[in-house]
Amino acid sequence: MEEGIEVAVSTVIFALRHDSARDCTSLWMPLVRRVREPYAGRWALPGGPVRRDEDLADTARRTLVATTALSPTYLEQLYTFGRAERSASGPRVISVVYWALVRPEEAERGIEDENVAWHPADRPPELAFDHRTIVSYALWRLRTKMEYSRIAQAFLGETFTLAQLRQVYEVVLQRTLDPANFRRQVEASGDVEPTGEYLVGGRHRPPKLYRHREANDLADNGPLTGL
Amino acid sequence: MEEGIEVAVSTVIFALRHDSARDCTSLWMPLVRRVREPYAGRWALPGGPVRRDEDLADTARRTLVATTALSPTYLEQLYTFGRAERSASGPRVISVVYWALVRPEEAERGIEDENVAWHPADRPPELAFDHRTIVSYALWRLRTKMEYSRIAQAFLGETFTLAQLRQVYEVVLQRTLDPANFRRQVEASGDVEPTGEYLVGGRHRPPKLYRHREANDLADNGPLTGL
Repeated sequence: MEEGIEVAVSTVIFALRHDSARDCTSLWMPLVRRVREPYAGRWALPGGPVRRDEDLADTARRTLVATTALSPTYLEQLYTFGRAERSASGPRVISVVYWALVRPEEAERGIEDENVAWHPADRPPELAFDHRTIVSYALWRLRTKMEYSRIAQAFLGETFTLAQLRQVYEVVLQRTLDPANFRRQVEASGDVEPTGEYLVGGRHRPPKLYRHREANDLADNGPLTGL
Repeated sequence: MEEGIEVAVSTVIFALRHDSARDCTSLWMPLVRRVREPYAGRWALPGGPVRRDEDLADTARRTLVATTALSPTYLEQLYTFGRAERSASGPRVISVVYWALVRPEEAERGIEDENVAWHPADRPPELAFDHRTIVSYALWRLRTKMEYSRIAQAFLGETFTLAQLRQVYEVVLQRTLDPANFRRQVEASGDVEPTGEYLVGGRHRPPKLYRHREANDLADNGPLTGL
């Protein structure tokens, strides 16, 4: 084993937030402003070095809470970035990247730190290191994975209407979906079930509420679950 | 960044091979017998430490060729295993695990090394480190990914019959599939196209040959492709 390789964890955090400037809901992520060189002043993904006695997922959780105070409902390993030339100077750093999805009520609460702020995921500011590539990859994986998994539900609370679930797909995939087709597909998939309750409100016909069929298993890691 | 973390790459290699003992085709993987402590004498996944100036995928390719002389058609990053207590003694090692799929003609050629041998993927011998967990995870990912991607085609040559493609699914998923249903699903997916040729042989009605629709893109990494 050669000297000079360091291991860090970074996390891409996505949430749906209301964009008051454009009066629409879109995909946002919190970024941290670097206060040290290299890239001092630039925005970067939250993260930090792996401690000697710490599991990788624990590093992700610890640095995520320390920088953003967010506790995501979905946290999963995404990819390990280790191109030899990615750190232009200094030691070589291999980044194990996690991604996290946060529910809207937590995302709307805001962040009380001048060096941490939400940014639109598809129009980020100039980022440190190769974090722009990492964000592009995470966005691509999110869009791909929504086609064959229940990951969209991680953006929602315990219960939700089909219109809310459809909005998640529309915002992430950036296209309009037909409500009737969407309802048929979701009902055929068996991924959600009606709670028997209705959304409280002043409407004449309040919409039905649904819930995840298996609440705690949105990040499916097969034999690694619970490890 | 704390001292004492080392980074290595290991690769799980899968291929379909004929099992003469059971007279059937099943899923196999090459393993390397360790000649040094820890776990001297035990079988382990091919791999080795990451060199200072080497991309992670290049470490995977280099160690794979050095130990097994195989050049897989499909090589993709699988998962990074970094549980703090995984190395009982000595330095902490974080393993970036790749997985590779090999075509049958290469898998049947055999390996000319007394410390490298093919083993049945679902009944491996006792393995070093946490490699048993890694193999279980790789098998689970292969079975899951076959349901929504074209990964099965990586086990086959340039051209193949639908019966050969179906056999890949049957062997990996360990269940029998209805030939007519399978044909309909594959034709509807648009993942393969007829070559216009037929399998050469003595049969009365030789089966049609098919090929991948996009030959070089079975491991789809989106924005990371070509990086």
